[in-house]
Amino acid sequence: MTFEVTILGSSSAVPTSKRNLTAHVLNAHERFFLIDCGEGTQLQLRRNKIRFGKINHIFISHLHGDHLFGLFGLVSTFSLLNRQTDLHIYAHSELEKILNQHIEYFERTLPFKIIYHHLNPKRNEIIYEDKKITVETIPLKHRIPTCGFLFKEKTHERNLRKNVVQQYDIPIREIHKIKEGADLHLSNGNIILNADLTLPPYKQRSYAYCTDTAYSEKIVPVIENVDLLFHEATFTEQLSGQAKKTFHSTAKQAATIAKKANVGQLILGHFSARYKDVTPLVEEAREVFIPVFSAEDGEKYAVELERMT
Amino acid sequence: MTFEVTILGSSSAVPTSKRNLTAHVLNAHERFFLIDCGEGTQLQLRRNKIRFGKINHIFISHLHGDHLFGLFGLVSTFSLLNRQTDLHIYAHSELEKILNQHIEYFERTLPFKIIYHHLNPKRNEIIYEDKKITVETIPLKHRIPTCGFLFKEKTHERNLRKNVVQQYDIPIREIHKIKEGADLHLSNGNIILNADLTLPPYKQRSYAYCTDTAYSEKIVPVIENVDLLFHEATFTEQLSGQAKKTFHSTAKQAATIAKKANVGQLILGHFSARYKDVTPLVEEAREVFIPVFSAEDGEKYAVELERMT
Repeated sequence: MTFEVTILGSSSAVPTSKRNLTAHVLNAHERFFLIDCGEGTQLQLRRNKIRFGKINHIFISHLHGDHLFGLFGLVSTFSLLNRQTDLHIYAHSELEKILNQHIEYFERTLPFKIIYHHLNPKRNEIIYEDKKITVETIPLKHRIPTCGFLFKEKTHERNLRKNVVQQYDIPIREIHKIKEGADLHLSNGNIILNADLTLPPYKQRSYAYCTDTAYSEKIVPVIENVDLLFHEATFTEQLSGQAKKTFHSTAKQAATIAKKANVGQLILGHFSARYKDVTPLVEEAREVFIPVFSAEDGEKYAVELERMT
Repeated sequence: MTFEVTILGSSSAVPTSKRNLTAHVLNAHERFFLIDCGEGTQLQLRRNKIRFGKINHIFISHLHGDHLFGLFGLVSTFSLLNRQTDLHIYAHSELEKILNQHIEYFERTLPFKIIYHHLNPKRNEIIYEDKKITVETIPLKHRIPTCGFLFKEKTHERNLRKNVVQQYDIPIREIHKIKEGADLHLSNGNIILNADLTLPPYKQRSYAYCTDTAYSEKIVPVIENVDLLFHEATFTEQLSGQAKKTFHSTAKQAATIAKKANVGQLILGHFSARYKDVTPLVEEAREVFIPVFSAEDGEKYAVELERMT
């Protein structure tokens, strides 16, 4: 039951020799969600040994080139590898036209179907749902329509304690009820309390991806209590004017959001290429919020399973 | 007076964890010519410490995505870095439309001018010329219009031997003639032979870039005697049928061209992703032609200066 983010690229618009353009992959229960797809994403997927066939859902935050120019090559490679499975792309509606023009010119036809899901970046809404996971949009504040994404596990069931099924000879039809909290009524009239049959469920884990965005407190209620928050920190406070002008955030602003939303951990990223060493950004954030980390290409951030108390 | 090729990407259409998509840079006398621009080229330029500002001329062999998808990001980065210098792009005429559409959508305006040079892939002709270098097209045989590029130094002058100017008090107006081969007539009637005044000129150096292409002997007269030939070798002979069908070459075919054209060194590249180890391709070529090398990302191939005899 993995819940782990891999950072594929951590630079802002201009890449450096050490930082690729923006892309993350979330592995949630062996479902792999690709979030943004900057140039070079397919290369980074290869380097990080994430199988192309695992990627069925791609989320694009906004239509700036540094967040999507890797889509052209990725779709082309999927085609060359004769992918058959549908590919779901969640993005602003204009992407459909842009990508289709590309496909028409460079690929002619694809052996798989692309299913476009048009995002409304003004609303917080569920855009994906399966048995284990939901994905919601997070309205952000950038120069063009932009949204972040919130990945949440659904409620876990209580887990049966070891050997109780055999011990009390529990019929299958009862198991589901017990996992939902019911006690067990034995044929001899005795009652076994649920607490003796089950362990508390695991906590729901969550990951919020917020880039590109200016400082916006409006996102706080949406991302409240997430385990892992990725928030852009393009600049230090010294360049807060530049951040404001370009609708980006400073490290301090990212940390302020983390604090207000009471998140578990904060990952900073989308660093301006001017910062050869990002320690000053991490230190600036650390004055406001702990724990905080800098996104580094190839690094993984897992949220471990933990039982509710 | 450098003449050196840097391999930025050596994979064919599908990249691997070790091989980026196709791009080379030729440094000829500190002019940097970018040849093809697969996805990730700007990242590879960074990693190989080639300054973006040095790139003024980009040559695109053909309009398959794996040879040009890096252009979008590169142009975008040039724009973000506020490039002012004209950028010359040599490619099939349709690229102008494709790239302009991109620029219009993603960049709106650029702070620099792009000057498009439309190639005629059916002719061998000079498409670039300056005081030191010429670039010619090499008509190739692929599924779509494609041309290779031949980079040649112009003739070098003879070099004056050390101290002769002082020794014989040669007037400046005579120097040019002597470099062209004239003897020196002294005022006392004596004649100093040119051979005593000058060293033979350096040989002209040349580099031919031939990808993507099926086996085509038509290119032999164009690339005859080049110092360095890059020729694609997508497959081994075992997959010669696949090569023929897709208009690519085998390693043996690349070597046969190298032999017939009497080139100095052969570099194989554009390897199919199926070859984790390309030794079999090099060995196959080596049976026909020596010396042969496999293109590896980040490697440099220099042609050293050598005097004519």
